[in-house]
Amino acid sequence: MAEKEADPKILKGYLSRSNVVVERVEPEIDSGRFPAKAIEGDDFEVSADIIRDGPALLQAVVRYRGPDSRSWSETFMVHVGNDRWVGSFRPDDIGTWRYTIEAWTDHFGTWRRDMFKRIEADQNVDLELEESALLLEAHLKTVPVKKRAVLQRAVEAIRKKSRKKGASGFSDPRIAAALDEDVAEIMAAHHVRTNSAMYKPVLELTVDPERARFSAWYEFFPRSTGNEGEHGTFQTATKHLSYVADMGFDVAYLPPIHPIGSTHRKGKNNSLDAEPGAIGSPWAIGSREGGHKDIHPELGTIDDFDEFVAEAERLGVDIALDIAFQCSPDHPWVAEHPEWFHHRPDGSIKYAENPPKKYQDIYPLNFESEDREGLWIELKGVFDHWISHGVKIFRVDNPHTKTFPFWEWAIGELKAEHPELVFLSEAFTRPKVMQELAKLGYNQSYTYFTWRNARWELEEYLTELTRTEMRHYFRPNFFTNTPDILHEYLQRGGPPAFKIRLVLAALLSPAYGVYSGFEFFENVPVKEGSEEYLHAEKYELKHRSLDGRSNLVPFIRRINQIRRDNPPLALFTNLVFHGTDKENLMAFSKTAEGSAPILVVVNLNPFQWEEGTVSLNLTAMGLSDGESFRVTDLISEDSFEWTGANAYVRLDPFQEPAHVFRVDRA
Amino acid sequence: MAEKEADPKILKGYLSRSNVVVERVEPEIDSGRFPAKAIEGDDFEVSADIIRDGPALLQAVVRYRGPDSRSWSETFMVHVGNDRWVGSFRPDDIGTWRYTIEAWTDHFGTWRRDMFKRIEADQNVDLELEESALLLEAHLKTVPVKKRAVLQRAVEAIRKKSRKKGASGFSDPRIAAALDEDVAEIMAAHHVRTNSAMYKPVLELTVDPERARFSAWYEFFPRSTGNEGEHGTFQTATKHLSYVADMGFDVAYLPPIHPIGSTHRKGKNNSLDAEPGAIGSPWAIGSREGGHKDIHPELGTIDDFDEFVAEAERLGVDIALDIAFQCSPDHPWVAEHPEWFHHRPDGSIKYAENPPKKYQDIYPLNFESEDREGLWIELKGVFDHWISHGVKIFRVDNPHTKTFPFWEWAIGELKAEHPELVFLSEAFTRPKVMQELAKLGYNQSYTYFTWRNARWELEEYLTELTRTEMRHYFRPNFFTNTPDILHEYLQRGGPPAFKIRLVLAALLSPAYGVYSGFEFFENVPVKEGSEEYLHAEKYELKHRSLDGRSNLVPFIRRINQIRRDNPPLALFTNLVFHGTDKENLMAFSKTAEGSAPILVVVNLNPFQWEEGTVSLNLTAMGLSDGESFRVTDLISEDSFEWTGANAYVRLDPFQEPAHVFRVDRA
Repeated sequence: MAEKEADPKILKGYLSRSNVVVERVEPEIDSGRFPAKAIEGDDFEVSADIIRDGPALLQAVVRYRGPDSRSWSETFMVHVGNDRWVGSFRPDDIGTWRYTIEAWTDHFGTWRRDMFKRIEADQNVDLELEESALLLEAHLKTVPVKKRAVLQRAVEAIRKKSRKKGASGFSDPRIAAALDEDVAEIMAAHHVRTNSAMYKPVLELTVDPERARFSAWYEFFPRSTGNEGEHGTFQTATKHLSYVADMGFDVAYLPPIHPIGSTHRKGKNNSLDAEPGAIGSPWAIGSREGGHKDIHPELGTIDDFDEFVAEAERLGVDIALDIAFQCSPDHPWVAEHPEWFHHRPDGSIKYAENPPKKYQDIYPLNFESEDREGLWIELKGVFDHWISHGVKIFRVDNPHTKTFPFWEWAIGELKAEHPELVFLSEAFTRPKVMQELAKLGYNQSYTYFTWRNARWELEEYLTELTRTEMRHYFRPNFFTNTPDILHEYLQRGGPPAFKIRLVLAALLSPAYGVYSGFEFFENVPVKEGSEEYLHAEKYELKHRSLDGRSNLVPFIRRINQIRRDNPPLALFTNLVFHGTDKENLMAFSKTAEGSAPILVVVNLNPFQWEEGTVSLNLTAMGLSDGESFRVTDLISEDSFEWTGANAYVRLDPFQEPAHVFRVDRA
Repeated sequence: MAEKEADPKILKGYLSRSNVVVERVEPEIDSGRFPAKAIEGDDFEVSADIIRDGPALLQAVVRYRGPDSRSWSETFMVHVGNDRWVGSFRPDDIGTWRYTIEAWTDHFGTWRRDMFKRIEADQNVDLELEESALLLEAHLKTVPVKKRAVLQRAVEAIRKKSRKKGASGFSDPRIAAALDEDVAEIMAAHHVRTNSAMYKPVLELTVDPERARFSAWYEFFPRSTGNEGEHGTFQTATKHLSYVADMGFDVAYLPPIHPIGSTHRKGKNNSLDAEPGAIGSPWAIGSREGGHKDIHPELGTIDDFDEFVAEAERLGVDIALDIAFQCSPDHPWVAEHPEWFHHRPDGSIKYAENPPKKYQDIYPLNFESEDREGLWIELKGVFDHWISHGVKIFRVDNPHTKTFPFWEWAIGELKAEHPELVFLSEAFTRPKVMQELAKLGYNQSYTYFTWRNARWELEEYLTELTRTEMRHYFRPNFFTNTPDILHEYLQRGGPPAFKIRLVLAALLSPAYGVYSGFEFFENVPVKEGSEEYLHAEKYELKHRSLDGRSNLVPFIRRINQIRRDNPPLALFTNLVFHGTDKENLMAFSKTAEGSAPILVVVNLNPFQWEEGTVSLNLTAMGLSDGESFRVTDLISEDSFEWTGANAYVRLDPFQEPAHVFRVDRA
């Protein structure tokens, strides 16, 4: 049988390929289809498997560049075992960064490693010395001019024929010159990259401002900030901002502020027949007075809104707007662009449905309509409009019912121009759809937190969020409650339940939020088994006042202050759970370089006290076995001296359901 | 602030993108960089996350095509929960297959699902009926001609105005027509694929012949097949083949058969000073009599080899050759192509080293030499040469010390022309390097099996091989021993240890092997603490005879027969471990459709009997709780009636250390 000739084109490709392989890079979301996420000023870690044939040593760098940089920077990776390499860099600017990996054979390091073995075995190394001289000479071009003399001197010393009498092994001056530490350091820093492997995909990294990770949100309806019985306005809401700021919140988040439709307007408690004077749901957007770029007339004017934003800025509070892409039948788009909606066979516009439920006050938009181009541009324009009025944070309503490509395009375009923007995805749906929205560009996401109340549920869910690939792209925002979600735990657990859920939301997740009323323990559902509020604020005004009412305001203020004072609480993936011997006792800690660790122990049972033993993972808090340390409760200001891994705790929810300890080494 | 105009080019790309997303396809090795592996005639399963916005239903297919096909075939995927979809096809030819996924919105299925809800809620559905008629009409073009009449009749019935008096809900003939099962089936099978998502990467699949997965190997040195004291030849080896075949082995595997060098030839027990008449190591390849394409003259001629191969074929045995790309200093390449080797500064050729160890009888090849093109072509030619003499299986020696791109190129080219070839990687090195070789094209791999003797080690290792991504590309070949590896377990455990390791190798892995001498319980190491054999066959002749010696031949024959008779044992990823209450008792089962499950219980302690309770995973064997079933030991032919998950076993290694049960439902 004749041997087949090798195809020279195919062969050529392989002949020029590096013998070094870089694989399983992390983070690399869906083969690099999506960017990972990081925060300005945080270390960003990249890891990979890096191998080649045979026993030669390797070197590797992470290559990276910032949004405005045309040239690559590099940081060396280190081998951490099992052929895994890790390197990190600190993005110092928001926007889109890029990174990849380069790896090559460390010929000099390999030579040096082997040289030690040869000398220890007392072998003749004359030829190996000459090999090192040749290697050093080959590096004279790649080494910076200032350092060349070091190599040149080493080469001379290595080649000096007159070996001292009696000198051998490490005392031989030729060997000492070749193994010199300075030489090794210069060679390691400037090794030639012969036949180096460049990881093919250049990966992207979205670097966000710190507020995308660390922020305390407070949701309120501007129309509820008026005097009792009166419709609030942006003027009353502006005054209300100091109340929000005083509790320590960073973000004031408003339901939609646009004109409300009257066709099929809902009445109190979501009734289909609205009572006379019904004020309507802010999510039924659009009337003859305008649509998504307009202010509901009863709330005031755009100037009032601008003043509201200005006051927020003075108080250090960011405004988050709720963007709900749906229309009341009265929305101007319905008449101007009927083609942007779905139609029924009789030509009528389709209202929203979740069969058999019908929502006749809402028309969904058709993101795949013939004129989707016009629609998408108009929708993006809604964001642009509010950005031009100082809004930097958008909470997007039900993004999972709008087509994915729209979000990727719109958020991509908006963040390209305004990398400081934060988009929060309000998608309560199936896990992979929520993940997809985060991958497409949302910087924060609503979560299942509200429905995770038992210890095992919380530990399992938080482990998924902090330890799986999700940690690279999905940033949670833990809400204790929303205008739609009053969990049974709050309905039944009384004030201790509110404290417990606040501690969990605020200290487990660096981004968290409460919806107003929470501080007054509002807990009555519209009916048994429902998570909707009775007299839901979506359909009527609420008047809330601190006067003489039992409230959680001081506790919230304290917790928000603790968050601000303790850098570990601004981070998420630093979360570590500790053991306890009681199902209702949950313990977790967070650490940050240069700060005292924070250790939280919570009694999850709002009905009665619990005592038990916490089994601490001391290593996770930088403590060693048998070491004594001081824990100071930042709520009660009590302080205890603890030793070793096991500590007794007793928590009475009617006093305080949680210890929030700062841990100080003795 | 002016709103920025959207870049129309960028927008256009997103506007035309599908609203359906296909992600996390499995298998997809390193983002599709490497093919997965499958066996001709086996089902090949593909899975993916498939989602879109909103609550619409989806449909998806795996698209695939064989090596000689220009058109795609399709198989529908099914949703198995949590947005995961699975589909499979059965490759019926060896070679490179391709596969990808297409998914789209199932508008009719969605309409139908919602229709049921509407009717149950007793809603007016006149418009929905017309919607269905329009949908059916839109499908008249995509549905095969023969089936169109079914849809047309349905459309007519749906549009019939005269609703029967009293007919409502499902009894309304219009509704019945729209929800008709035949209509639903036709629509499901031929749904239009509007805005469908085609998964971008077209993934590759290497389909191998069954022998790549299922084969029993026997390794022997042809030179040891002569009469006592005589150098064996291919003529004596040809006679020896019936002994190999009679034990039930499918593959006869030979160490290198090429001329052996004399420079620095090693003597008995690897001594540096060879005794007079030392026969040398077959791995010191090359002499004035030839190199890798030649036969060692003492073994005979190429005609003798051809006759050997022909006899093997008559016996149903495949020949596997050992390809070791290294040279004795006497190899013709050394003189003809000194540029193919590494050189020392004095111009001499570098011998093999693992500092401080030196192997002066071996010259490694330089795969990155200036003339690597010539070298690579010559090396590939070695395979071509032996292929032309009927060899289809190559066991490659130390592939991890040769550059990765060479293997990908050479195996790729060879398999393109001869897809029936099987390459076994003899790499005992770090896990990721072994994995890389498998990914690059090796169809089978040596493993760590020899060093996994405790139950937890075996269970952990086999779980990695059968449950992680490795199962898609890494096919193990479990060797009980090799000319280099005599594990301490065999050194100390006596004949029971040999039985135990045979049962484990042969029944855990569908591909397994033994090196001759194993059947005679050869167990003496060259020294305490070594895994090398005393009087290793690498350096001297062995004469082995069945005459009057205690041996394992009948046991091996029985085990190989059991493997052939029971299809579950030809598979690997069907492996399931069962619980036992003793650390030395290990239990595992394998199942295959249409065959009785095989349940193996092994006493891993070769020194004494063990009794205990096995806790069976009944579901894994297709049994239900409380069901009675019969287990028949295929070694002892004993039979027991068992009921439920717990069964008592007692295994005396001096009788039989294992039960190999066939499990039959009562």
